[in-house]
Amino acid sequence: MRKQLHVISDGKLSLEAFAEIAGEVEPFADRFHLREKHRTSRELYEGVKLLCNEGIPIHKIVINDRVDVAWACKTGVHLAFHSLPVRVVKTHFLDMPIGCSVHSPEEAEEAAKQGADYILFGHIFETDSKKGIPPRGTGSLEALKKAVEIPVMAIGGIKPEKVPEVLEAGADGIAVMSGILQAKDPAEAAKLFSKKLNEEGEK
Amino acid sequence: MRKQLHVISDGKLSLEAFAEIAGEVEPFADRFHLREKHRTSRELYEGVKLLCNEGIPIHKIVINDRVDVAWACKTGVHLAFHSLPVRVVKTHFLDMPIGCSVHSPEEAEEAAKQGADYILFGHIFETDSKKGIPPRGTGSLEALKKAVEIPVMAIGGIKPEKVPEVLEAGADGIAVMSGILQAKDPAEAAKLFSKKLNEEGEK
Repeated sequence: MRKQLHVISDGKLSLEAFAEIAGEVEPFADRFHLREKHRTSRELYEGVKLLCNEGIPIHKIVINDRVDVAWACKTGVHLAFHSLPVRVVKTHFLDMPIGCSVHSPEEAEEAAKQGADYILFGHIFETDSKKGIPPRGTGSLEALKKAVEIPVMAIGGIKPEKVPEVLEAGADGIAVMSGILQAKDPAEAAKLFSKKLNEEGEK
Repeated sequence: MRKQLHVISDGKLSLEAFAEIAGEVEPFADRFHLREKHRTSRELYEGVKLLCNEGIPIHKIVINDRVDVAWACKTGVHLAFHSLPVRVVKTHFLDMPIGCSVHSPEEAEEAAKQGADYILFGHIFETDSKKGIPPRGTGSLEALKKAVEIPVMAIGGIKPEKVPEVLEAGADGIAVMSGILQAKDPAEAAKLFSKKLNEEGEK
């Protein structure tokens, strides 16, 4: 299976700025997450429109936590511990693609059992957005992969040169925030990630 | 039409405490709003269960802003300016009862046009929860009533003795927060509001 590249908004850029970068990066990325915890549902709804206007296909858009916005816009949703349970979303929002952040093999198993379509696990390496919290490393990623059959995306401090190590540990893709959003040339950065993710064929 | 009494959570009580009061007050109230802006969707979802456990029928429960929680629990929803637009909720969440907070006749007309089932308008009188903001008074309520045909609930500093004045201005019901939640005997308070609301027959 092709390894995926998810780009996650950082909650700092304006939605316009994120949408603009997304437009440049689109050919190299598989998903764009609006992870904007401080924003209202109205703002997120408008944010999806901005992404669409930049040419992002709706199936590439993922909304964090707000299942209602995702449902109204027909995007995917990404759930965390404080969100509605995966099982509830699976039951009441038919056919919505569901991702889920987990922090242990047990949580991963539970999310898969409840019907999550993929899992996000991290942070793998040190990253500024999780300063002071020890990274989980690729060893724990490898352990988690053994617990579930659904795809596992790795997140946290992943640089292009680290991609082979992450794939070696079994990741089905990666999620990147600053590595693309803060790059001098986001499209070049995304292209490089994409190349690293798929250059060695089906791992 | 019977005049309605809505009880609105204040975001300060624990959900357990609110549910307990709701259970006592239930015979006298028509709607219970979970208006808990600081809470996660997971907490709200659990809050609905607490209300159900206290014997509140699901059709009496209204969730503020979180259309996803309302949809999953089959409750009504109450929208504000920062929420998903009424039209969007009407389109994508079929048959969900929709209330909408408005602050002018124009906003009321727009909400009604988009498909809101009722409107909440205030604050009518001075209230601690809107300290320093001048109340709108019953005159503006009367003006708003002329703009729309859907029911209008009045909110803000309404004491039992003020109910006749509010009904005189055309309110189809009232919403109360501290007047019931902070009453020594919430059930007695709700009973008095309910009596005042309907003692003079169909106004």
